[in-house]
Parts: sequence; structure tokens; C-alpha cells
Amino acid sequence: MASTQTPSSVAEAGATRLLARFAVGLRFEQLPPAVVAEAVRACVNLLGCSVFGGRHPSVDKVVAALGPFGGPPQATLPGRPERADCLLAALASGIASHVGDFDDTHPDTLVHPSGPVLSALLPLAEMRRASGSEFIAAFVAGVEVECRIARALQSAHYDQGWHITGTAGIFGAAAACSRLMNLDEDACTWALGIAATQSAGLRAMFGSMSKSLHVGRAAQGGLSAALLAAQGFTSAEAALEGKLGFIHVLSSVPNPQALTTSLHGDWELLRNTYKPFACGLVIHPALDGCIELRERHGLRADDIASIELSVHRLTLELTGKPTPRTGLEGKFSVFHGAAVGIIDGAGGEAEFSDARVQAADTTALRSRVTARVDPQLGMEQALVVITTVQGQKFTLRVEHCIGSLERPLSDAALDAKFLALAQGALGLRAPAALRALRDLPSAANCTDVSRLLAG
Amino acid sequence: MASTQTPSSVAEAGATRLLARFAVGLRFEQLPPAVVAEAVRACVNLLGCSVFGGRHPSVDKVVAALGPFGGPPQATLPGRPERADCLLAALASGIASHVGDFDDTHPDTLVHPSGPVLSALLPLAEMRRASGSEFIAAFVAGVEVECRIARALQSAHYDQGWHITGTAGIFGAAAACSRLMNLDEDACTWALGIAATQSAGLRAMFGSMSKSLHVGRAAQGGLSAALLAAQGFTSAEAALEGKLGFIHVLSSVPNPQALTTSLHGDWELLRNTYKPFACGLVIHPALDGCIELRERHGLRADDIASIELSVHRLTLELTGKPTPRTGLEGKFSVFHGAAVGIIDGAGGEAEFSDARVQAADTTALRSRVTARVDPQLGMEQALVVITTVQGQKFTLRVEHCIGSLERPLSDAALDAKFLALAQGALGLRAPAALRALRDLPSAANCTDVSRLLAG
Repeated sequence: MASTQTPSSVAEAGATRLLARFAVGLRFEQLPPAVVAEAVRACVNLLGCSVFGGRHPSVDKVVAALGPFGGPPQATLPGRPERADCLLAALASGIASHVGDFDDTHPDTLVHPSGPVLSALLPLAEMRRASGSEFIAAFVAGVEVECRIARALQSAHYDQGWHITGTAGIFGAAAACSRLMNLDEDACTWALGIAATQSAGLRAMFGSMSKSLHVGRAAQGGLSAALLAAQGFTSAEAALEGKLGFIHVLSSVPNPQALTTSLHGDWELLRNTYKPFACGLVIHPALDGCIELRERHGLRADDIASIELSVHRLTLELTGKPTPRTGLEGKFSVFHGAAVGIIDGAGGEAEFSDARVQAADTTALRSRVTARVDPQLGMEQALVVITTVQGQKFTLRVEHCIGSLERPLSDAALDAKFLALAQGALGLRAPAALRALRDLPSAANCTDVSRLLAG
Repeated sequence: MASTQTPSSVAEAGATRLLARFAVGLRFEQLPPAVVAEAVRACVNLLGCSVFGGRHPSVDKVVAALGPFGGPPQATLPGRPERADCLLAALASGIASHVGDFDDTHPDTLVHPSGPVLSALLPLAEMRRASGSEFIAAFVAGVEVECRIARALQSAHYDQGWHITGTAGIFGAAAACSRLMNLDEDACTWALGIAATQSAGLRAMFGSMSKSLHVGRAAQGGLSAALLAAQGFTSAEAALEGKLGFIHVLSSVPNPQALTTSLHGDWELLRNTYKPFACGLVIHPALDGCIELRERHGLRADDIASIELSVHRLTLELTGKPTPRTGLEGKFSVFHGAAVGIIDGAGGEAEFSDARVQAADTTALRSRVTARVDPQLGMEQALVVITTVQGQKFTLRVEHCIGSLERPLSDAALDAKFLALAQGALGLRAPAALRALRDLPSAANCTDVSRLLAG
């Protein structure tokens, strides 16, 4: 890593500064091929979600509410025809990326890492005409910083009521933008501090539009932190680890060591996963199991007397809605997930639409689904027991659901997911946009890539 | 209060909704004359600070960093020649209002209430050409909501590391803007929820530019919360009081009852105070005592062998810097406060400038000041013991320092403070600006008032 620091200052540097040093020092040439490949996969996955989500009413409302206060048309809004200034674009794109609950997940921390980072980075890179390799390096820097801060907050943070994709995400955006803007170590240290003191997002918002707002604000706040720091706007030196620092205020059981463990050489991005289903991650094992049993036994809804699910604690805590009324609520109903798994054999955006949630057949089958917590089951596990009206019993235990680290989505599946999500907004341009994303590491500039995502 | 609610829904409404109902229902005609008078005093005090602070380097940096992304010139930036869109104006004005640490204080909660509220409200009122009475009603609504939420967080919140002017301030801005925009109860409930999930600000930033950023972000975030809610962007119903709601996540010892205690009829604004000195509030009793002893005994720095201060715990915790190097650091040094009290007999912006902090005479006297915590002393109390080189000992116990609720600044003192602060930026226009603020309740529109504050 390029560094002008003397050994003594290295020894003295705190965690915030070490993270800043890592972020601004990261070079594309240092990245192992597997990390570059995973970065591309993350971009394909996330930006498909952003293009699809760009047409969601919550993004319409943000553009209508804040557009009149916005600046010059500097950046593309994925999936939309308008352009916006970079800060509004970061906000709107962040919301768009997350509103379908179809983005990526870092299972160890429950962070959805790419949304805050890419939503800030893409408009900035478009405006600066950054190269694809610079973009990839900045993206990786952002994800690595974000996931390490998420680890340091530990599960207590989420349990206390924080939405970690908002709270940790802003650091990813700040680090990535600092890297793309070639900030020095001091400025990036300040950017992380400015991010720390704007970090927010409550789980109490789940089920409302404000859940996705967290990702938008993380992207916008992280970008503006880097912009402010670039002008010499100061913050604290030890914003994360210091007395009354971020990790101590926002977690009752922080782990400061996790902030800087294995920087370089151990890549959090390689522990990222992509959703096959357009709903809360904790629904996936049950949905996966229902599809599998449907295929194996040719099950139809009319055959089924009951579906008994055994699931992880968080599945019921986060997705325990037995009678969802909208598509958004359906994404947080493991009961609806099981129903469409059996009826439709799928779990894409179509199966979590308002119409599909309100349909007679899903409503009827949902009422025959029960779910209970099994403390023995992990988050990517489920036990599905289906009893038919004829009294037959079919049982499946899902060990690692599709989309988990152990059963990752293939490149082909990610491409298909992108095309399905992007078709509506991009039409015939969707395959060209996909190719441009696949070729990102060698792209001369990101401006052309970004513009291909306009609706 | 105008309300379309049925008695049953009134009974069922939670605290967030009751606060929203109060805010959007508040009418200027309902306000007791004392409340209107205090609102005017708060405006005079705060906007003088904003005009002075508008020329601070931290505001220069924000305008330089974010101006290129800003929208149409909709609003005045106090103390500055440029205009900006309302959201950037709210951010910059909020920083300007607080950067001198010369704003107002609600002693029971340590909130500086007017900065977040007025910094959001003034640009919005300027753009909407709101009347002065509408402006005052919205301001009062904001302060009442803000201070009640601050009470509900209790002192645990501040002790845990939160800067309460940032965290509670955003609600004041959201409520005030909701009122000025005539939002209905549902929309204001959402606005408070959107505010809750963006609320932030760490005490770890004290001593850096990011401390004032909290006030700017609170203003900007509260305004944007109201704008989003006006478009139907949804949040949680019980964002404050619910399970995992704001007060439970951000305070280990919340008091939900305080959220709605004595809404109507008991005015938090009447418990607001204004600083006579341009430094941290917890320095004021010692500074006041030093000036008083100087006057009584004709003391000069050369006469003094030692100054022994006994102070409240927070005085040393927040302002314990013995060797400040800049004006900003001087504002957080009770040692510097005591020194200028003796040497200059004053504690205005001039006495907390870089030059004055770095001067030989203040540096020399500071080194002869000691301070210790006396657990018997309240926050507005201090014991000052001065020993002269001739061996004389002068003692003064300050019971209620000047500027406290018991010894409030007079209207004349507030006017003088405004004129001293505004002179540099407004020049000959300063008296006209003061008159316009004094006449605010009867102003036909706020646009003309706001424009008088341009630098």
C-alpha cells in the first residue's frame, strides 16, 4: 500500500485512521481476480435492483419532494428518465436499490453492503468520468470498511433497534467516495468521522418507505462526508474507537478489534451473497424448501392441508406477518413466501406484487401455513413439513438455502436476475447494460455505463 | 385546537401522533403574549449568531463543498452574499447558528433549541412568503416538540455520548416545517418518524467543525422530512414511543410520559435562556464570577497569583482544555474563560478569537488558573477564589450566572448582542434587521425579513 506514514505514526494510528489509510491506499492492481470478479457480480446484482426500484412510488415521492431543491443534472437516476445532481441521485438510487428487498447480504452482519456504496459511487463516477478500474477499487474499499464497522458493532447493535445497512452503510459510501476522489489519509479520516456523526436508521421503520430511506441517506450522507472532508471540514480523530466514539455509542457490546482485523488479504466482499428471492432474507430457506417439495412431488395448492415451517428466531421477528395486504408487506411475510413457493414455484418481484399478495389463491394457502421458532436452526436453515389433504406427509430440511455462501447464485443466474429486473425500465437496452457492467473493470469511463441504466 | 379526530381515535393516539396533532394544530391566536415575546427574543438572539457565524470558515467549506450540487437560489444565507436552495440554506444556516457556541439553551435538557428550528424555518418561510404570525406559530410548535422529546431522552442520552441538539433538534425542524406547510396530522406523524430515523450527532465531535454540522443536519433533515411527508412518503406510526422506537434506542433510561406532558398551557419556550458569553454554557458561571470580582476589586492580570475555580462536573468534562490553541478551542476552555473575564471584563466573540486565545497575556494568566469539580455545585453555579501576588484572597460564589432563567438577559442586552454580532456582516443595515425581527409577529411576509439578514 502506498503510504507516506513513518513506522511510528503507523503504530500510533487508531482504528479510524487505519481504515482511512486502507481505503485511500487501495489500488485496483492489488485486488485478487476473485475479488474483482465478485465486485462485478455485486454490481450486476445491485444495479438490477436499482433499475427496477427506480420506478417505485417511494422514489417518485423523493424526486417530487426534493427535486425542486436539487441542482444541475449531473447524474443518471437508475431506471428513470430524469437526471439529478449527484447528492439527490445518491439518495434516490439508494432507496431504489433497497426498496425491493432484493439486494445483497453479508450474512455475518446482516448488512446489505452494495446499496449504500454503489448508490453514492455511481453518480460521482459518472460526473468525474472515472475509469472502471478506479470504480472497482473504490467500491471494494467501501465494502471492506463498511463490513468491518458492521462487525465491530456486533449483533447487539441490530438487537438494540438499529438498521445496520443504514448505520454501517454510510461509512462504506464515505470510504468509497474518498477513494474515488483521491482524498489523502487525513481527509478520509475526517470523512469517516463526518459519516459517524450522521449515521442513523431505526428498525422501527421496517414495513414503511423509510426503511429504504436509510440506504439512500447512507449513500447521500457518505458522499457529502467525502465532499466536506475534501474541503477541509474537520471531525474527530478517533470517531469510531475513541471514548464516546461511534461503536461505543451505538452498540452495548462493541468489538473494537474487528475494525481493523485482517485489513488486506481477507476480503469481506468474498463473503457477500445475492438473493434469489425478492423478499426478506430470513424467508428464503422456507421458500426454497417449498419450491423444492413442489418440484419433487408435483404439489399443487389444492392438495395441501397444511404447511408447517420451523424457522430461525429472526424469521418470525422480522417476517411474521400472517396476513399481508400489500406487496411490501408480503416481502415480510414468511407465510406468503411459502404460499408462492408452492403455487408459483418462484419468488421474484412478480410473486411479491400487490396483486399477488391480494389474490384469492395465495390468501387461501397462506391461512394453512403455520410457523414456529426452532432454536436449533440457523438463519439459512428451515424445516418444511407439508401434509396433503389425502394425509400424506412430505418433509424437507434446508441446510443451506439457494443464494447462501455455500450455494451461491451462478453468474448465469445473476445475469438472468438483472435482465428480469431491468427489462421493464430499459427494454431492449437491458442486455447492453448487462454487458457494460460485466466489462466494468476495463471500462474507459463510467459515464457511459451509468447512462445505460437510465429508464 | 382544530382537529378532525373522533374521541376514540384521540384516546388511542400514541405520543408521536399526539405531538404531530399538537404541532399542526397550533394557532398564533392561541399563544399567550409572553410566549410570542419569548419567540421574538429567541429569533433576535439566534439570528444574530447566524449572521455572525455565516462568515465562519466551516460555512465557507460547506458552501464550497456542496454548492456545486445545490439547486435554485431560493433563500438567504444569513451573513453571506450568496443565496442557496432551501435545503442547503438550512444546512449552512444551522452550522452558522451554532459555530460560535453563542446560541440559546434550554437548561433542563441542554438542548440549544432555536438553531435547528429557525435554520429550517427561515428559508422555507422566505420561499413561501409566509406571514410573521405563521412563522411564530411554527417556531413555537417546533421548540415545544423538540424540548419534550429531549426531556423524554433524559440525561442518560447525553451521558451515552449523544449531542442532544442534533438528535432532538431534527424533530423541532420537522414539526415547525410541517406546521408552516399546513401538513395534516398523518403527514406530520410521518415527518416525525422520518426525522426519528435520521436523527444523529455524537459528542465525540466536540472541538471539531462537525459539532455545528449536527445543527445544520438537524435543520436540513427536519425540513426534508416535512417535504417528504407532504408527498406521502411513509414512516412508522409510533416512531418515538413504540417497541424499538426512537427514545428506547437512543436512551437507556427513556421517559415516554415526558413526550406529551402538558402539551398546551405549559410552554418549554418560557424555559429558554440566552448566552451572554460566546463560549460553552458551562463556562459562564466562572466567567461571570471573574468579571464580577474584577469590577468589585479593580483586579488586573498582573495582580493575580492564582485563580481557583470550583465548578460542576460537566464544566471540566466539556470545557477542561487547559491550553487551547484556537478560538474554537478557547470556547471549550474554562481556563481561557476565566482569563478573559479578568483581563477583558467581557466574553464576546472578540475574546474567543484565535488572536485572543494565542495572545501572551491570556496564555500567561491561563497558566495560573486551576479548576476542580465540586459535586455540590449546579451547572449555573461556580466558586471563584482569586489570590493576589500581595497575598489577598477574594472569593465569590455565583448562585445563578447572568443569562440563566433567574437572571435573564434583558431585551436591551439581547438587542446589543444582535447588533454586535451583525455589525460585521450587515454594517449599516443591522439596526433595520433588528427592527424587522422585533416586528416579526405583525410582518406581512418573512421574505423581506429574511433578506435583511444577507451579508
